[in-house]
Amino acid sequence: MYAALDIGGTKIAGALVDERGTVVHRVELPTPARESTHRMARTVDAVIDALSATPVWGTVRGLGIASAGPVDTAAGSVSPVNIPAWRAFPLVESVRAHPMVFAGIAPVLLGDAVAMTAAEHWLGAARGVDNALCMVVSTGVGGGYVLGGRLLPGPSGNAGHIGHISVDLDGAPCVCGGRGCVEGYASGTAIARYAVQAGWAPQPGSEPTAAAVAASARAGDERALAAYDRSARALAAAIAGSATLLEIEVAVIGGGVAQAGETLFTPLRRHLRAYAALDFVRGIEVRPAALARDAGLVGAAAAARQRLLDAGEGVTRTALAAGG
Amino acid sequence: MYAALDIGGTKIAGALVDERGTVVHRVELPTPARESTHRMARTVDAVIDALSATPVWGTVRGLGIASAGPVDTAAGSVSPVNIPAWRAFPLVESVRAHPMVFAGIAPVLLGDAVAMTAAEHWLGAARGVDNALCMVVSTGVGGGYVLGGRLLPGPSGNAGHIGHISVDLDGAPCVCGGRGCVEGYASGTAIARYAVQAGWAPQPGSEPTAAAVAASARAGDERALAAYDRSARALAAAIAGSATLLEIEVAVIGGGVAQAGETLFTPLRRHLRAYAALDFVRGIEVRPAALARDAGLVGAAAAARQRLLDAGEGVTRTALAAGG
Repeated sequence: MYAALDIGGTKIAGALVDERGTVVHRVELPTPARESTHRMARTVDAVIDALSATPVWGTVRGLGIASAGPVDTAAGSVSPVNIPAWRAFPLVESVRAHPMVFAGIAPVLLGDAVAMTAAEHWLGAARGVDNALCMVVSTGVGGGYVLGGRLLPGPSGNAGHIGHISVDLDGAPCVCGGRGCVEGYASGTAIARYAVQAGWAPQPGSEPTAAAVAASARAGDERALAAYDRSARALAAAIAGSATLLEIEVAVIGGGVAQAGETLFTPLRRHLRAYAALDFVRGIEVRPAALARDAGLVGAAAAARQRLLDAGEGVTRTALAAGG
Repeated sequence: MYAALDIGGTKIAGALVDERGTVVHRVELPTPARESTHRMARTVDAVIDALSATPVWGTVRGLGIASAGPVDTAAGSVSPVNIPAWRAFPLVESVRAHPMVFAGIAPVLLGDAVAMTAAEHWLGAARGVDNALCMVVSTGVGGGYVLGGRLLPGPSGNAGHIGHISVDLDGAPCVCGGRGCVEGYASGTAIARYAVQAGWAPQPGSEPTAAAVAASARAGDERALAAYDRSARALAAAIAGSATLLEIEVAVIGGGVAQAGETLFTPLRRHLRAYAALDFVRGIEVRPAALARDAGLVGAAAAARQRLLDAGEGVTRTALAAGG
């Protein structure tokens, strides 16, 4: 059994996940994102309290923590953009200090998009794929890589930040400080903003969301279709770039914007044929994410499981090297 | 001792490289790029003949082959753009068939930019760097990655094709079939073309090369400076993108265009500050390549050496696992 935490801007979720990836117990509390550092930490503790009160807690062999980014896995700390209460907060140390997190459990921290990648690789749309990109396209755009069959979190856990690569040298300035970033074209926020600027408006009384734009696109609204086409084009350039740099075979797209289904995927596949032109990248395949709500939790469990497998292998090697 | 071959569009070079990376014997023949498939293969054989005639040939423990791309390392074949005589030519099989390439030597094939990366990581500007990008900026733009301390050739040996990622969604069509590719801005060809279109002309009687543009830039010619600035900007976006996706710490730039020195590197570092904006990528460092002419040969030797080290480790593990 693995314990998993998923720290997001609106909720803090916890789960117990078994060896096959099934969530056998789940708990969730609202994130006190704008309260004190301490109150945030106590809320995480309360989620662990609930998990550790279950009879199976004694069988927990590892603990994974997915967190909204940026994270610093080397330092074990997090500074989630949407949780102002935490800046360089030592999350790993704080979790390890919980009395029920016994000494044998070394918590593994990873960013939420990297966790989603781990989950899709373990049980979802990237299962069995040795070289994959997973993207979360939502209010922002994040991602993660599997290379050579293994998750690539990067030294500080920030690899895969595909929302912030430039696909337009002369593009608009981005919140990150860069220019022409993928996120500025592809995110739900960008889709809605583009549609509104083109003269589209939601039904009276409803919000101008990417989902509302998708509904209009399905009804044939040209401005709504153009907004999704623009998102799809930036995603295609980023995916083609990843394939060109890393021989990625499959790109998995999850997050709220992917819920638009063929409104997004049809233009995405078309643009991909244009940008992924070299022989060795032409075969890249785009798939919708297979795991929904619990991808962060399942991915955190997957990372804890992988660490345990690696450690086991290490122990065996050491024992063998010592003639054991 | 390692044997190394470097197959290029103008020359086929061979070398014996020792354990410290020193080229102790070197031979070179012109590439019969437009003659027959067979004549090309015989020229490679002649290079191996010359190397195997040296007294130290008996101490050769591995053989690396760097080739102009595209390559297909899984198939062991090459189709170099600038060697029309070879399309899907089974180079590994052909080399292995040479009577002096004894059975113990399993040739390792890699693309030339990946070989340059291996060389810079072994002995050059990326030495001791665990996460590095090396770029060759010449008539084309190529590259390779070191991730987690290891070369990342990719499943077919084509990872690192950074010249063909799009940095401008709406950019000009590229020879690769894509649009807005880095190569179309950053290569020597692109620099010269841009300068000429801006009204720059070389000294009477000389060619409009990137080197000539660099000379004019050093003399303060605005059009020449603009051409290098444009190249630097595309390189900066591509390097920043690599850092954002893969937590690259160092980018090494080699190839003819890098010979322009500060004419290229000063604007490159400036633009990099603009595109590499996220906290975890801000520290990325750009360095000129340290190895010159023999980078392909040294890199091919490095790859042969790495395979031997890996195999040695594998053998030890197997022996240990078998209780040996």
